[in-house]
Amino acid sequence: MKGTVGELGEFGLIRELTARLTTTPAVKIGPGDDAAVIAAPDRRVVATTDVLIEGRHFRRDWSTAYDVGRKAAAQNLADIAAMGAVPTAVLLGLVVPADLRATWPVELMDGIRDECQVAGAAVVGGDVVRGDTITVAVTALGDLRNRDAITRSGAHAGDKIAVTGWLGWSAAGLAVLSRGFRSPRAFVEAHRRPEPPYHAGPAAAELGATAMTDVSDGLVADLGHIAAASGVDIDLRSADIDVPAQMSDIGQAVGVDPLHWVLTGGEDHAIVAAFPPDVKLPARWRVIGSVAAPAGRTPQVTVDGAAWDKAGGWDHFGDDPADGVRA
Amino acid sequence: MKGTVGELGEFGLIRELTARLTTTPAVKIGPGDDAAVIAAPDRRVVATTDVLIEGRHFRRDWSTAYDVGRKAAAQNLADIAAMGAVPTAVLLGLVVPADLRATWPVELMDGIRDECQVAGAAVVGGDVVRGDTITVAVTALGDLRNRDAITRSGAHAGDKIAVTGWLGWSAAGLAVLSRGFRSPRAFVEAHRRPEPPYHAGPAAAELGATAMTDVSDGLVADLGHIAAASGVDIDLRSADIDVPAQMSDIGQAVGVDPLHWVLTGGEDHAIVAAFPPDVKLPARWRVIGSVAAPAGRTPQVTVDGAAWDKAGGWDHFGDDPADGVRA
Repeated sequence: MKGTVGELGEFGLIRELTARLTTTPAVKIGPGDDAAVIAAPDRRVVATTDVLIEGRHFRRDWSTAYDVGRKAAAQNLADIAAMGAVPTAVLLGLVVPADLRATWPVELMDGIRDECQVAGAAVVGGDVVRGDTITVAVTALGDLRNRDAITRSGAHAGDKIAVTGWLGWSAAGLAVLSRGFRSPRAFVEAHRRPEPPYHAGPAAAELGATAMTDVSDGLVADLGHIAAASGVDIDLRSADIDVPAQMSDIGQAVGVDPLHWVLTGGEDHAIVAAFPPDVKLPARWRVIGSVAAPAGRTPQVTVDGAAWDKAGGWDHFGDDPADGVRA
Repeated sequence: MKGTVGELGEFGLIRELTARLTTTPAVKIGPGDDAAVIAAPDRRVVATTDVLIEGRHFRRDWSTAYDVGRKAAAQNLADIAAMGAVPTAVLLGLVVPADLRATWPVELMDGIRDECQVAGAAVVGGDVVRGDTITVAVTALGDLRNRDAITRSGAHAGDKIAVTGWLGWSAAGLAVLSRGFRSPRAFVEAHRRPEPPYHAGPAAAELGATAMTDVSDGLVADLGHIAAASGVDIDLRSADIDVPAQMSDIGQAVGVDPLHWVLTGGEDHAIVAAFPPDVKLPARWRVIGSVAAPAGRTPQVTVDGAAWDKAGGWDHFGDDPADGVRA
């Protein structure tokens, strides 16, 4: 495909984008009408939305359009999974400059489509408008399959905290990229394209999880949301939190305690949940902490019994990290 | 509320926004968790998304934040109604500059909430990020109440075309505003805040509509989508299309044929549908044309048997209208 999105025109671009999509049996009416129609066999639908902006959530010199698509879809699909639901559909609101090469939104759509396929979902609709800053607004829908939604507010004293998926890999990859390196590839790839354990969300619901979230702002920050919503304290045991040897090497090279990435790095979209103490967890889950009645007025997350005093999570309106991209 | 969104911070702003929301019985889990859960009693969910950008879809000197919120919600809720569905929920993806006064997004949210209430829906979730250009990405969901979805592709030769709601009012209001006037108020208000006939969508489905859409790009352009999707010709009878006397007066004042606004003006979100010829329509529907087998290779929309040669609808990547705001 040649030329810019301006040359292709709105309808030309929409044609190119929709032509590349795949479908699933859950899609009753796909793109092209006033709205899409998607199966919601559970009689409830789970819905979430996230916005990514160029320069803030991704950089075109660090990530391909395809990777941005994978990532934009992944972070929304992970939110669906973190409710215990199975993702069904994605809608895309896209802002693109007229002088952007038309291949960029097309490859973005390929990435969104492929990530949807990994999660069992399909792109069912969207909107494309012209604007100065590339903006990717993704909405994801899912089905609870007749199970209760697992919110952040159900954790009880005595529960254990377990996690599955990657922790700190994206943050380590960002640290590498922001220092001008392109390797180790495994971490750079993890930053460009997270691999949330979608299956783990519904599986945790089935296992009896009492509270659950995906790690998008960082483990300590996201567990803080569970602690606050559930009115409990959570203590993590650092000895039980795996820090891969390769991550320790990078940490040494760039002068960062790798445990910091593991505890505060977001965007890998691991799934973390509270479970009653007697629940037997499959091997993919690592028990990393426990839930207690709140000791003070404000529910807290501690590491080995002490406050984790390094910055946790991000506030989008606060200071930018040095590199200008949210980690 | 004082200060800017940067001073309030992401979490402070989200707290302010969610504190203003109302709910409905369909909302099982509202804002504040990884995702929302909304009732979908029909076992299907209707979903649509639209993006509005400052300077392109609205201007802060012409519309209040509240009006932008009403409009952003209205255009999505109208898409749900145009499928024959009842709106249930809205999600908001919002991009705001850090130096924007915090009252702006808060009033925007008030507008979205109030328009949702008109349509019977509720805001259930969203995302707020910082960026240079105010961008409002709205996703709406709806329930079909056990009726078939009414797409654009079901019109048959012999059907009649009927419309309900306002036509050309927003375009006339935009013409007034773009010439520096603030009156007549009825038209300016119609541009700032459309009033889609939400009830008419499900009602048309109940009456047996064969194809339906809302008028967002202009009557001729949107009927063109029905003609193309259904493989039919559509002819409109201009004598049956009401041009209010006041609109004629404005047209004379600014040198525009008011029929042009009625036929090509979008954003009032009237509902237009094809019905079998024997369907008795309530008084609110005006029969304005008819459906025929295609005379040529390409399905066409004509007015009094002839091509309507003035520009119809907008292409977002094409030339801007003189005033820089999509009409």
